[in-house]
Amino acid sequence: MDRRSFLRTSALGGAAAATTTLAAPVYAQGNRQLTLVTSVPDGFAVFDDAVQLAITYIADMTDGQLTFQKNAAGTLVGAFEVFDAVSAGQADVYHSAEYYFLNQHPAFAFMTSVPFGMTSQEMANWYYRRGGQELHDNLSSLFNLKPLMCGMTAMQPGGWFNIEINSAEDLQGLRFRMPGQGGQVLGRLGASVQNIPGGEIYQALSSRQIDGAEWIGPYADERMGFQEVTTNYYTAGFHEPGSALHMSFNLDIWESLTPQQQKICQVACEAAHAQNTALSLAENGAALARLQAAGVQVREFPDDVWDAFGRASAEVSAEGMSDPIYAEIANSYFASMAESAAWFEIGDGEYIRQRNRVNAG
Amino acid sequence: MDRRSFLRTSALGGAAAATTTLAAPVYAQGNRQLTLVTSVPDGFAVFDDAVQLAITYIADMTDGQLTFQKNAAGTLVGAFEVFDAVSAGQADVYHSAEYYFLNQHPAFAFMTSVPFGMTSQEMANWYYRRGGQELHDNLSSLFNLKPLMCGMTAMQPGGWFNIEINSAEDLQGLRFRMPGQGGQVLGRLGASVQNIPGGEIYQALSSRQIDGAEWIGPYADERMGFQEVTTNYYTAGFHEPGSALHMSFNLDIWESLTPQQQKICQVACEAAHAQNTALSLAENGAALARLQAAGVQVREFPDDVWDAFGRASAEVSAEGMSDPIYAEIANSYFASMAESAAWFEIGDGEYIRQRNRVNAG
Repeated sequence: MDRRSFLRTSALGGAAAATTTLAAPVYAQGNRQLTLVTSVPDGFAVFDDAVQLAITYIADMTDGQLTFQKNAAGTLVGAFEVFDAVSAGQADVYHSAEYYFLNQHPAFAFMTSVPFGMTSQEMANWYYRRGGQELHDNLSSLFNLKPLMCGMTAMQPGGWFNIEINSAEDLQGLRFRMPGQGGQVLGRLGASVQNIPGGEIYQALSSRQIDGAEWIGPYADERMGFQEVTTNYYTAGFHEPGSALHMSFNLDIWESLTPQQQKICQVACEAAHAQNTALSLAENGAALARLQAAGVQVREFPDDVWDAFGRASAEVSAEGMSDPIYAEIANSYFASMAESAAWFEIGDGEYIRQRNRVNAG
Repeated sequence: MDRRSFLRTSALGGAAAATTTLAAPVYAQGNRQLTLVTSVPDGFAVFDDAVQLAITYIADMTDGQLTFQKNAAGTLVGAFEVFDAVSAGQADVYHSAEYYFLNQHPAFAFMTSVPFGMTSQEMANWYYRRGGQELHDNLSSLFNLKPLMCGMTAMQPGGWFNIEINSAEDLQGLRFRMPGQGGQVLGRLGASVQNIPGGEIYQALSSRQIDGAEWIGPYADERMGFQEVTTNYYTAGFHEPGSALHMSFNLDIWESLTPQQQKICQVACEAAHAQNTALSLAENGAALARLQAAGVQVREFPDDVWDAFGRASAEVSAEGMSDPIYAEIANSYFASMAESAAWFEIGDGEYIRQRNRVNAG
């Protein structure tokens, strides 16, 4: 018995039972509408932009024959309940960040981003060219899911703090919002880490329930209004150097699509991912300038704080290696990252250094 | 009279006349096949991979209703004749590098790559988010064409030389293959520059008709076999830091497609572009290692050669600015590049520096 059929008949037995209570899919005049659940409110910059573009592409490319009814976080299920809901067949597809689901499996961390991990392009290289998609397919199939990469925040800043971080000691006791392995790293350094859905961060920050938070980047953070309630913005971060978002289909729903519909979904997500990457990287600079004009103090962590992040990140990463699925994915991920990074240093990296040097001369 | 209708009725009068001699489009059982011409032989790494993936996506997403008959360079028209052939309606669509067509308009340089110009991601930021697509649409419409970005070589190495380049004087009299503004820059530095189609470079290099050539990057260059005939490989280059490829449709053909077909072509090209970018950036490192194992000497231009490239590039770039279309595109391009590069320095750049520093510690 393979892992997938094992889980579909045992560990997810509850899920299998739940599906029997669902209404039949809606087919009207050859059209089909799938129920989509997301982890953020409608209109959230970058995050919701990605899925909105993907489903618009799919609707346009199928001439309306395959559409999605998008349910924002909290309307059908909670922000962090989308995984279980789609796994169990209570909804057809979710759009989210896989590292929200480390309790389901810790290896989902790699599908979003891990500390000292991949930049946006390194992630695309791994996912499309070095087996990332296949490893993700295998992992998600354990939960009756079929994932497609669909969204990219690019490098996420260290975040918003109500104090200055001059040494690792300043992290002690800090109540900070950070999900994924990054949050585990901060916790190891003494912070009190909370994983709060995107739609609830502003309230938590403004009510002083937390002392700081990271979200996505200047463009998305500006729309959240964090600059209204805290002013120290650490621009470079260790925790999410290139965070991918994903659409993930209930596997039975995915397999019920025609090959043409599957291809349209796949290609739409690849294109939406590329557009979302460009959005993130094109809009952050201008947004940061606006934030600075509004009084935000842009700061960088000192080297010894980066060193502390590095030590704790290595510990967190090593902890997972006793799990064979985690280890397989981690080894693939870091091998691909090393290969991509080495060529970047020779290629784009050397070019950018020379361009900067020549243009300054 | 707008520029487009002016050109369609006057400057391209010959083209308009030519279209009347064409056979009617083939429509069989609701299916449509377009005639595609390219600038490289079939199977050429990176370049042909991009268009092959795009047309496969389109065929799959239309369930075979929209397909392309791909004609490699030299089979229907020559490698550099594809632009005029599609502009005139002798073929329906081409896939090529727009900087092959500087004689048609010098501003096409920006649609591929210019010296000291954009990296791959900077190009995507400009094209998708800062008006590059619209400027390209306007420019190409003067020639009755509709372009879609479809392919990315990423940073192109300086190239293959049969001598070492220790100073700018070593470029004097060098017979070198380099197209676009990069070739104009080398020419200004005393080289004898030739624009040779990809499919003919190996023969020119092995017969000593030329002293050196640049093509795409380690992965594509390795397949060309350049390592068999020359051994000095300069890995970082000034001339094409992120070269885009494009599909470009005859505008009448484009407008005859349904909105659904147009959307499928657009999204397929966006996805193929992203896949091709990942291919270029994921495969070059391993290919370079193989080339080095085969005896290739990897070298970098000295700083004073980069300085000479910089001075000559600024002169070449300035020359075009008297043309208002060129100036409009150049100003948009360089403003977007400066904005993207500034955020990169704060974001990915600072992150990569810290990752390298922490991992080395």
